[in-house]
Amino acid sequence: MSPIKITKDNAKAIFEQYNHILFDCDGVLWLGPDAIPNVQQAVSALEKQGKTFAFVSNNSSASRNTYHEKFKRLGYKGLQKSQYFPTCYSAATCIKEKLQIPIGSKVWVLGDHGIEQELEEAGYVPLGGTDPGLDTPFDPDHELLIVDKDVKAVVIGSTKSFNYMRIALTLQYLLADNKSIPFIGTNIDRTYPGPKGLVLPAGGSVVEYMAYTADRRFIDVGKPSQVLLDAIIDHCKFDRSKTLMVGDTLYTDIKFGNDGNLGGGAGSSLLVLTGGTSETQLRAQVDHGESSLTPAYYIESFGDLAEYLS
Amino acid sequence: MSPIKITKDNAKAIFEQYNHILFDCDGVLWLGPDAIPNVQQAVSALEKQGKTFAFVSNNSSASRNTYHEKFKRLGYKGLQKSQYFPTCYSAATCIKEKLQIPIGSKVWVLGDHGIEQELEEAGYVPLGGTDPGLDTPFDPDHELLIVDKDVKAVVIGSTKSFNYMRIALTLQYLLADNKSIPFIGTNIDRTYPGPKGLVLPAGGSVVEYMAYTADRRFIDVGKPSQVLLDAIIDHCKFDRSKTLMVGDTLYTDIKFGNDGNLGGGAGSSLLVLTGGTSETQLRAQVDHGESSLTPAYYIESFGDLAEYLS
Repeated sequence: MSPIKITKDNAKAIFEQYNHILFDCDGVLWLGPDAIPNVQQAVSALEKQGKTFAFVSNNSSASRNTYHEKFKRLGYKGLQKSQYFPTCYSAATCIKEKLQIPIGSKVWVLGDHGIEQELEEAGYVPLGGTDPGLDTPFDPDHELLIVDKDVKAVVIGSTKSFNYMRIALTLQYLLADNKSIPFIGTNIDRTYPGPKGLVLPAGGSVVEYMAYTADRRFIDVGKPSQVLLDAIIDHCKFDRSKTLMVGDTLYTDIKFGNDGNLGGGAGSSLLVLTGGTSETQLRAQVDHGESSLTPAYYIESFGDLAEYLS
Repeated sequence: MSPIKITKDNAKAIFEQYNHILFDCDGVLWLGPDAIPNVQQAVSALEKQGKTFAFVSNNSSASRNTYHEKFKRLGYKGLQKSQYFPTCYSAATCIKEKLQIPIGSKVWVLGDHGIEQELEEAGYVPLGGTDPGLDTPFDPDHELLIVDKDVKAVVIGSTKSFNYMRIALTLQYLLADNKSIPFIGTNIDRTYPGPKGLVLPAGGSVVEYMAYTADRRFIDVGKPSQVLLDAIIDHCKFDRSKTLMVGDTLYTDIKFGNDGNLGGGAGSSLLVLTGGTSETQLRAQVDHGESSLTPAYYIESFGDLAEYLS
């Protein structure tokens, strides 16, 4: 079925069908440091109608505390830390609740501060990660190349500071003990919309790189994993049939909502064109793609709703 | 069929069936800088019997000139540059002969000196690669982020100097012009046997990383690609039914020989256990793996033949 374009004429009727909205962040609310115009006002208008929100980002670089600061800086009011679900947090939650790894264990990290911070908040000791001692050329005598037996999990996510030293170290943990240390990947994103219109490599590429190198699969704690969606719906006490997913990426955001059968008959997902997907790519998806990646609705920018809903 | 172990009793009879031997290098002849004991003597014994050789490495970091120096240093005599087939050379040959890209064109490189040297020898201008100007944190204003229209191909292979800057730049070339610039990957190797018994990330992982990120496939110019085998057989004027492939990796070396139907009825491939494959892994392959990855023969070390053939 072809997605419906949201316009001034149909916007109110469409949004009346939903009580809860799940938002992807980058490419929907903002692009890098900059807010996308009028989106905060649109979210505010929906809040006044009594709708509730959760923010689900495959970005693993920023912790919930960092998200909280960013939302405040961009003019969002009244949001709680418990409404943010970046994949660094879902990785820590997976280690604690699903894998039940003892508090106090070490966790090897290939990724950024967000993962380290969420692991620490959950009671674990991150190893590797942003350690500046690893910003070095490869050294086959590095002490960390001897696997630390106290490491009970490996988390891999996006990082701009990866180098051969960190990758070689990470591989030792993925291969250790006959590949038995749990391997958590924060997401499967290939690229993300960067500054100046650039398309840049994303965290999923780092996860897939290590999965290929170690020849093993990973526990995916990002969109479109339904384990994540189930946890959010449960945690936020959302009515699944009254929930809409909003995002800019077909194979993560839109699939996440569609696979979760959100929205009941009203449709699961809304694509915005302010991020990683163009209208041409949406058309190609509608004509040739699998239906689980096709959104129910699309809109140029979520910011357009500031006017449409007023 | 279970592979036959080569011993003092059967070695002479087995090798009498072959006139030509294709050798993988790392893990067979040497491990990093160090010769594997007695291998040079075994090769020399086979040479005295009139057998001819080619050396086929998925390593793209060293050019044929570098191989020539290394063989000389390790005591090999009388070898010619035309006997070496590292994948940096097969990448340059692919660009020149198969893709027929005009001499003098620029080629974007994510990889080491070997690729740059072979491209230059073939008449091309490498860009990116080991350029020390790219040993920097990611800079969204970097002038090379504007795609150079004179770049007519992209070659990706192993490199220890990769960083986010180089990867982001490489992605721009893989996505440019609707993904139409040819993308050559030097190999598909996940790992290689490093110093001190370490298993380290190999070039194929870098190739797959970029293939995943750009969401496109590549022209594989390394083992087990049969385009490479056909070129070597043709170039060296080997009788395919009298040729044996010797290597340490099942999914590259052994598959290369087996898929090429080398050796006629005598068997296509010989696995050595001095590199990336253990006897346990060979057993698992025989019991559970696909037959195209099972060698006809195996031996602890090719160096054992120095005694067996004397």
